Amino acid sequence: MSSKGVADDCLGWAARDASGVLSPYKFSRRTLGNEDVHIKITHCGVCYADVIWTRNKHGDSMYPVVPGHEIAGIVTKVGSSVHRFNVGDHVGVGTYVNSCRDCEYCNDREEVHCTKGSVFTFNGVDFDGTITKGGYSGYIVVHERYCFTIPKTYPLASAAPLLCAGITVYSPMVRHKMNQPGKSLGVIGLGGLGHMAVKFGKAFGLSVTVFSTSLSKKEEALSLLGADKFVVSSNQEEMKAMAKSLDFIIDTASGDHPFDPYMSLLKTYGVFVLVGFPSHEVKFSPANLNIGSKTVAGSITGGTKDIQEMIDFCAANGIHPNIELIPIEYANEALERLINRDVKYRFVIDVENSLKET
Amino acid sequence: MSSKGVADDCLGWAARDASGVLSPYKFSRRTLGNEDVHIKITHCGVCYADVIWTRNKHGDSMYPVVPGHEIAGIVTKVGSSVHRFNVGDHVGVGTYVNSCRDCEYCNDREEVHCTKGSVFTFNGVDFDGTITKGGYSGYIVVHERYCFTIPKTYPLASAAPLLCAGITVYSPMVRHKMNQPGKSLGVIGLGGLGHMAVKFGKAFGLSVTVFSTSLSKKEEALSLLGADKFVVSSNQEEMKAMAKSLDFIIDTASGDHPFDPYMSLLKTYGVFVLVGFPSHEVKFSPANLNIGSKTVAGSITGGTKDIQEMIDFCAANGIHPNIELIPIEYANEALERLINRDVKYRFVIDVENSLKET
Repeated sequence: MSSKGVADDCLGWAARDASGVLSPYKFSRRTLGNEDVHIKITHCGVCYADVIWTRNKHGDSMYPVVPGHEIAGIVTKVGSSVHRFNVGDHVGVGTYVNSCRDCEYCNDREEVHCTKGSVFTFNGVDFDGTITKGGYSGYIVVHERYCFTIPKTYPLASAAPLLCAGITVYSPMVRHKMNQPGKSLGVIGLGGLGHMAVKFGKAFGLSVTVFSTSLSKKEEALSLLGADKFVVSSNQEEMKAMAKSLDFIIDTASGDHPFDPYMSLLKTYGVFVLVGFPSHEVKFSPANLNIGSKTVAGSITGGTKDIQEMIDFCAANGIHPNIELIPIEYANEALERLINRDVKYRFVIDVENSLKET
Repeated sequence: MSSKGVADDCLGWAARDASGVLSPYKFSRRTLGNEDVHIKITHCGVCYADVIWTRNKHGDSMYPVVPGHEIAGIVTKVGSSVHRFNVGDHVGVGTYVNSCRDCEYCNDREEVHCTKGSVFTFNGVDFDGTITKGGYSGYIVVHERYCFTIPKTYPLASAAPLLCAGITVYSPMVRHKMNQPGKSLGVIGLGGLGHMAVKFGKAFGLSVTVFSTSLSKKEEALSLLGADKFVVSSNQEEMKAMAKSLDFIIDTASGDHPFDPYMSLLKTYGVFVLVGFPSHEVKFSPANLNIGSKTVAGSITGGTKDIQEMIDFCAANGIHPNIELIPIEYANEALERLINRDVKYRFVIDVENSLKET
């Protein structure tokens, strides 16, 4: 067995060029290191990041690109020094699979902010020079530090979207103290991230208002997701009626929108958290920030400490993403539908039952 | 004595129209209420707000405008129910002289955020309908809640600028935990607010870097104010060398400037606080906010609890604004020089010794 592992024994689906079309692809994973966990992938969530890098939206794609960074699966082998996991454990892997493990952020288990840069789970360059490949594949080998325990009572299919969508909203919500019962939260956008923000908000005891461009999501937001209010953001009367009423807003919208109308909805000391990456600048009037001493903050996923805490919180509180389980053959169509925001609320690929040699 | 007080017994200097030219003006103050303090004004700081409302920059000036909201003086009379002050006490009055005293913010002594609106010290409409008149005058009558004790060891002339410039930077610095020794602070702008931010930063044990458009301020920033570093903001090499090096930035600049170059200087979880009111929108790239999970916050002065705490902190730590003491006859020229940023670092009017019937 070479240091590169058994040649081409890992089956995945990869994009070969900027068309982003995915098709079966065989490649090698590294051999199991002492501190590595070998995971049979059962499920992988479909994140907008998969669109970005399969279609070279940032101009830095390294083809073939095997996407997927919301990985859930079962431990099949462990390295000799692994102490947190055993064969048969249910585990998750998120948006990064390595970091320097030596900087102040790594030492605080905030590896996402590693000063040398955390290594992305796919289309990343690992410290050994290999280009990482993601979860649209049969198995993965990951240092145990970047693996998370999924309680066996929690479905693996539900766990997958927690690894990116879940932590991306959970981490700033906790950091900015959005877990104080009785406070009020606005959630902008109701996709994979937004619907998790609603669920976390309710679990934290908040009054949750959903802001959406589309009235069509109202019924589900209220009845299925448990939001308290629903506001169509283009309805100026409804927006005005919410003036100075919210303690927090979390903005999960992928599209561009003005910020000032939302800043006006915050109470004094209100906090607006951006987790999306709109293509335009964030801009608002100084008065909207200063009067009321408000805060605007950004965030990206979370460290390994937060991720495990979030998974445990979901398991303990019965919080499950609403998913649409799909076979891997449907991945190309799923990415198209994701671009068109036609998903309630997260696609999860049933890797275990659909990834097969053709 | 009428409810409006002794007719026209208060001498001040007022602007009569949008030219903003100040000249002597006699007017009435209210008679002393049970909870009021009657203060002989000895000093009044010159704030940019004095320019705004004497020259009707916001279109809401109610002439004659007697400016001034950095007031220091000596108690000459107290109402029958006043319990915090005695005749002879040294006191200060800041940017507001009334509030509802009943809302959640007033109850927290955060009166600056009063839900019914705090009443500005000049060009404000008090709850009795009178238009407030500021500290470019011989005396003032203020409810004791909005008066602050100035220790007799602390010069009244130095105390005046604390009431707006001082609290405007102190309050967000403490709120955003900029008082942790060993952390690093950037101060943008070196006027009345900026030079106080440097002094507070050093008193809090921070490493302080001043960012200024003008190299001419370097020597004083380092030797007189005690800053650790000085960066000319147009020098891209110096700016680049500061990348990801600051825990905090406080932006006191009155002029417009881009925000992204400063956001890049913040460490992970860094906090950027805006206390100025630039005329243009605040704008920056989403990536500059999200990557590093940074925060941008606004602020305006502070509540009565913070103001007294800040005065006591200055007295205890020997923090004094650098002032240029001027007679009231110089007020018009001082406002011109303030507009031209030609002041080191705050004008204070020697009301006691210069305000006289002509």
